[in-house]
Amino acid sequence: MIEWEKEYPLLSQINSPEDLKRLSVRDVYRLAEELRDVIIRVVAANGGHLAPNLGVVELTLALHRVFDSPRDRIIWDVGHQCYVHKIITGRREQFPTIRQAGGLSGFPKRRESVHDAFDTGHSSTSISAAVGMALARDLREEKFDVVAVIGDGALTGGMAFEALNHAGHQRTKIIVVLNDNEMSISENVGAVSAYLSRLRTDPMYYRSKDELEALLNRVPTIGKTVLKTLKRIKDSFKYLVVPGMLFEELGFTYFGPIDGHNLEELEEVLKNARKAEEPVLVHVVTRKGKGYPPAEKNPDKFHGVGPFDIATGKTPAGAVPSYTDVFGETLVKLAEKDEDIVAITAAMPSGTGLNRFAARFPERFFDVGIAEEHAVTMAAGMAVEGLKPVVAIYSTFLQRAYDQILHDVCLQELPVVFALDRAGLVGEDGATHQGVFDFSYLRHIPNMIVMAPKDERELQDMLYTALSAQRPVAFRYPRGRGVGVELTDEPSLLPLGRGELLREGRDGVIVAVGNTVHPALEATQALDREGVAMAVINARFVKPLDRELILSWGTKTGLIVTVEENVLAGGFGSAVLELLEEEGIHLPVLRLGLPDRFIHHGPADMLRRQYCLTAEGIAEKVRERLVLEGKKRFSGYTG
Amino acid sequence: MIEWEKEYPLLSQINSPEDLKRLSVRDVYRLAEELRDVIIRVVAANGGHLAPNLGVVELTLALHRVFDSPRDRIIWDVGHQCYVHKIITGRREQFPTIRQAGGLSGFPKRRESVHDAFDTGHSSTSISAAVGMALARDLREEKFDVVAVIGDGALTGGMAFEALNHAGHQRTKIIVVLNDNEMSISENVGAVSAYLSRLRTDPMYYRSKDELEALLNRVPTIGKTVLKTLKRIKDSFKYLVVPGMLFEELGFTYFGPIDGHNLEELEEVLKNARKAEEPVLVHVVTRKGKGYPPAEKNPDKFHGVGPFDIATGKTPAGAVPSYTDVFGETLVKLAEKDEDIVAITAAMPSGTGLNRFAARFPERFFDVGIAEEHAVTMAAGMAVEGLKPVVAIYSTFLQRAYDQILHDVCLQELPVVFALDRAGLVGEDGATHQGVFDFSYLRHIPNMIVMAPKDERELQDMLYTALSAQRPVAFRYPRGRGVGVELTDEPSLLPLGRGELLREGRDGVIVAVGNTVHPALEATQALDREGVAMAVINARFVKPLDRELILSWGTKTGLIVTVEENVLAGGFGSAVLELLEEEGIHLPVLRLGLPDRFIHHGPADMLRRQYCLTAEGIAEKVRERLVLEGKKRFSGYTG
Repeated sequence: MIEWEKEYPLLSQINSPEDLKRLSVRDVYRLAEELRDVIIRVVAANGGHLAPNLGVVELTLALHRVFDSPRDRIIWDVGHQCYVHKIITGRREQFPTIRQAGGLSGFPKRRESVHDAFDTGHSSTSISAAVGMALARDLREEKFDVVAVIGDGALTGGMAFEALNHAGHQRTKIIVVLNDNEMSISENVGAVSAYLSRLRTDPMYYRSKDELEALLNRVPTIGKTVLKTLKRIKDSFKYLVVPGMLFEELGFTYFGPIDGHNLEELEEVLKNARKAEEPVLVHVVTRKGKGYPPAEKNPDKFHGVGPFDIATGKTPAGAVPSYTDVFGETLVKLAEKDEDIVAITAAMPSGTGLNRFAARFPERFFDVGIAEEHAVTMAAGMAVEGLKPVVAIYSTFLQRAYDQILHDVCLQELPVVFALDRAGLVGEDGATHQGVFDFSYLRHIPNMIVMAPKDERELQDMLYTALSAQRPVAFRYPRGRGVGVELTDEPSLLPLGRGELLREGRDGVIVAVGNTVHPALEATQALDREGVAMAVINARFVKPLDRELILSWGTKTGLIVTVEENVLAGGFGSAVLELLEEEGIHLPVLRLGLPDRFIHHGPADMLRRQYCLTAEGIAEKVRERLVLEGKKRFSGYTG
Repeated sequence: MIEWEKEYPLLSQINSPEDLKRLSVRDVYRLAEELRDVIIRVVAANGGHLAPNLGVVELTLALHRVFDSPRDRIIWDVGHQCYVHKIITGRREQFPTIRQAGGLSGFPKRRESVHDAFDTGHSSTSISAAVGMALARDLREEKFDVVAVIGDGALTGGMAFEALNHAGHQRTKIIVVLNDNEMSISENVGAVSAYLSRLRTDPMYYRSKDELEALLNRVPTIGKTVLKTLKRIKDSFKYLVVPGMLFEELGFTYFGPIDGHNLEELEEVLKNARKAEEPVLVHVVTRKGKGYPPAEKNPDKFHGVGPFDIATGKTPAGAVPSYTDVFGETLVKLAEKDEDIVAITAAMPSGTGLNRFAARFPERFFDVGIAEEHAVTMAAGMAVEGLKPVVAIYSTFLQRAYDQILHDVCLQELPVVFALDRAGLVGEDGATHQGVFDFSYLRHIPNMIVMAPKDERELQDMLYTALSAQRPVAFRYPRGRGVGVELTDEPSLLPLGRGELLREGRDGVIVAVGNTVHPALEATQALDREGVAMAVINARFVKPLDRELILSWGTKTGLIVTVEENVLAGGFGSAVLELLEEEGIHLPVLRLGLPDRFIHHGPADMLRRQYCLTAEGIAEKVRERLVLEGKKRFSGYTG
C-alpha cells in the first residue's frame, strides 16, 4: 500500500491538471521526482513500460500546464508512455492497479477518462487521429487544440507520414510533439532518424560550394528556369540547411530542438506553438529511462519489463526458455548452414529474439524500423532474388501488413516465412495487443500455409519446415515461456498439411492447435477418470488442414471438438466446419476459442480460464457437450 | 487484326529491348508515335489504362535503352503504366489481347515475362521491392541495377515513405524514377505534391532574411549549439532552398526535374544515375495522356476507361446508373439533411462517386491522397468529435487499412461508415484488384457490422442505415451497373441484423447476399419448372446474421445453400456454418462462392459463370446437391 500523503506530499495534492498550474516551476521539478519514484515502484511490482514513461515526465507536466485537457485533446502515440498523464488526470489512486485485471489499462482508454482523447496501442496513429479531430473542430467552428505526442520511432511508420503529408496540405492547426529519444524500442533506424540526429547536434549547417555545385550538376541545364537559378547562385558561396527543413517542406512550422527535461524551455516553446495558426511540429529531445540508472543504461530492456528488483534492476530468470528464445536460437543454427537465410524485423530485434541473429550475421539482418508494410514487401523482393527471408513480427503488428502479405507475397507465391510472436492472448498489454486474429486474417489468403506449434520443440521443426517449403508460410506462437520440453539440435521436417494423432479415444476427438494442444491432452486425463475417452489430434496446420486425419477420427468417434487461442469467427474451428461442409459430412462440432469481442488486459492464464482454454475449461466444455449429445457415459458425473 | 509490318514499320522490328538500342534518337521518337497509336487503338477496343501509358512512352523507351532488362530489374509501381514495356519486351503480338480472358494482363506479371521483375497492382510497393532486390544483390555480390518507377500519387502512400526512409539508411544502390505527372488518378493532394510542384516551377529558390529570422526564433536560444549557429548566420542574408532537399535529407541523391518527353535529357540523366553508387531519385515530369488530345484534356476520365470512340473520345453511356453513381447521389441527399456527414476518399473522388459530394460540400469532403491507413484513422478521429464520416474506398484497397479498421475504429466502437466499391469480381483488372476478401477480413473484427445490398435501391437503404447505426458499419457493392430497379428519394432504415425472405419453398433455402440475390431468385424459377421449390433469403447482413430467419427456414426445408461473391474461406457461408455449430443444429449446407485461389483477369460475368455464381450456375449446383441428398423430386431431371 502506498501512503500517498506521507510518501508523495506534492503528488497527493494533484487531482487534475488544473492543480498542476498552481505549482511553481521548482515544485513541478519536485513533483517530477515523486512521479518517477512512484512509477519505478509500481512498474517494479506489476511490470510495464518503464523507460518510455520516465522519459516523458517533464514533457507530460509541461503539456498539462500549457494546455487545458480535456478541452484540448492530447493524443499519445502508441500510448505506453501515458502513466504520468494517467496519474495527474485523476487516476493516482488506481495507478498501482495498472495492467492488472480490472485495473487501469497500460494504454490510453477513452472509457477510462475524459482526458484520454483517443485509444492507442499500435504505433503511428496519433497524427491521423489529430488531423481528424482538428478538421472536425474547424467544421464545427469550435476552438481547442489537438496535440499528438509521437516518438521518433513511431514517425518511421508510413501512416504517420501519410498524416503529415495530408496535414501540411490541409493546413488545419495541429501540434505534433516529436518526442525524440533517439530510439523507439531498440536503436532507431532510417534516414529520418539520421536527420533528427543531425538536427540535435547542429540544427543548422552549411554545405560547401563544391557540394552545392555537385547538386547543381544534377539539375538539367536545359530550360530557362534553371538558367535563372544559376544566376542567383553567383551571390552565394555556401548554402544553409535550415533547421527542420524536412518538416517545413511538408508544411509544418518547426520548433526545436528543445531539451525535454527543461520545464522552462518546454513551456515557452509549447506556449508559442499554441499561438500558431497552422500545423506545428515541436522537436523535443528526451532521455528514455531518465532518473533510473539501470533504465538509462539499458533502455531497451526497460522499455517493457516484467517485475524487477529496484535496487539492482534485475528481473528473475526463468528456468524454461521462452518461445522467442527458441525461435531466435534455432534460426541462428539454421542460418549457419544456409547462407540464403536473412532475417527482418520491424524495430523489435530483441522482442522477436532476432538480436542473436543480428549479432551473428549482421549483414543478413535487417531492422527496417516501425514499418511492417515495407518489411513484408521488401522480403518479397528478396524472395524474388532467391533469398529465404524470415519476417519476425508480433501477431498484432503484422495486421498492418495484411495487404502486403496478400498482394505482394501470396499472389506471387513467394517463399517468405512469417514468424508471428506474441500470438494468442498476450495478457497485460490488453485489447490493442492480443494476437487473436491471425488465423482469421491469414487463413483466407490463397497460397498461404498457416501453422502453430504445440510447444517450443515443435516451433523448431516448424521454422525448419517453413524455410524448406518454398512457399509463403506463417507460424504463430505465444508470448512467454515454453512448455519445458526438450529441445533439439536437428529440427525435423514436418509433412505439409499433416497433423499428429496424440491419443486415441471413442467418445469424440479434440482437434487442438498451437498452445491449446497440451491443455487438451491434460483435459482428457480428467475425462478418462470419468469414463470418457477422447482422442486428441495436434492439428499443426490451420491451412492446409489434415483432412483425412480429422475426418477419419471425427467419423469414428462422432464428435469433433476444436480448440484454438484465436477468435472463433473465421478461425481454425471454422476451417474444420468448412471441411465438413465441403465433404458433405454431417457431424456435431464444438468449437472452443475466443468470442466475438475485444479482450481486455489481465494475466493471460486468467483469461484462458475465463474462456475455457485451460485443461479444466476444455474438460468442462466437453462434458457439457456430451450431455447435450446424450452420451452420458460418465461414471461419476451428475451434470 | 493489326497488320504490324505495314501499319507499324518500326515497332514491328522491336522484339526485345536490345532492338531498341540500335535505333537512332530520331527513330525512337518515331517509334514513340507508333506506340501511342497502337495503345490508343487497343485500349479504345478493350478498355484499359490509357492516360498513364501515353504519359510514359518516352520514359519507358529511355529506361530500356539505358538499362539492360532483364538483368537490370525495372519495377512498375501500381503497374497500370506497363503497356509500352510489355509491347517492347516481346509481347507485341499479344498486346491486342490485353485485359481479355487468357490474354495479357494489364499489370506486370512475373509469370508472363522475365522482363516483369515484380508483380504490382496496389500502389506504393515498388520501392520496398526494389530495396529487397538490391539488398539480395549486395549479399550475393551480384551486379545489376534495380529501378523503381513510381508516380507522384503513389509516393503519398505511407509504405513508399517507409521504403525511402530505410533505403536512405541502408545506402544500397537503387534508382527511384519519380514519374511526376501532377496527378495520380485525379488531382494530387498533399504537402509532398505541393513540394514537387515548387521543384517543377523553380527548382531552387531563396527565402528572405526575414523569413530566416522567423525560423531562427523557433530554435531555442539556449545552448552553445545554437550560439555557434547564430554566428554563422551573420555571413548570410538569404538562404537557398536546394532542389530535392527533401529527398537529399532522406539519403537520396536527387536528379531533376527533367522533361519526361525529351529522350536526350532522359537518357543523359539516367546514365548518370546508373553510375551512382548510392540511392538515387530521378524526378521526371511527364504529361498524362500525352499525344491523345481527349486524354490530355481529361486525364482523370482516361485514367482507366472502357471502350471508347477514338475520333471523339466518347464512351457509350449506360442506361442504368452504376452502384457508384447511386452511392454518390444518395450520399449528397443525406448530407443535405445532416451537416455532420463528411466524406473521405483516398485519391478516388470520381471512382467512388464522391465527386458529386465534393462539388456540393467542398468543406466536408476530404481527399487524403493514396493513404488508406491515414484515411481510416482520420475518420476515427472525426467520429470521436461527433462527425459521421463515410470512408469510400475500393474493397481491394481497403485491405491496406485492415489494422486501422480493427485497432482504431472497431476497438473504440466509433461510428465510421465504410463504403466498399468494386467488391466481388472486378473482371479485367484481375487478381490484384478482385474485391473478394472483404467479408473474410471484416467479419471477424468485433463490433463491426457488415452488409451487402442486393441491388442499387437497397444500397441507398444501407447507406442510410449505416449512417444511423452509430457503430462501425461496412457495406460492399459491385463494380458497374446496377440491376436497374427503381430508386428512391427517401431511403428506408433497415432493421439491423435482419434479412428478408424473398420467397418460400419446401426443398431447401438459398441464403444469398449482395449481388448474388437476384441470380439466386432467377435460379429458383428454372428449378420451379423441374418441380424443385427453393425458398430464398436475402441475407443483407453478413454480420450480425439474421439467426432466426436462417435457422427457421433451414430447419423447415432441411437444406441451406449460401451464395456469395467472396472467397469461401472465412466468408459469409462460413458465418452460417458457425451459426449452426453455435446452435448445435445439424443441417446440410452447401456454400457457393469463390475458391481458395487468386482469380485472374477476364470479364466479370464470364468469371461468375465459371464459379457458378450466375442463375444457371446456382440452379445447377442446387440440382447436384439435391441428388446427393437423395431428394430427387424433379420431374424432368435425369442427373
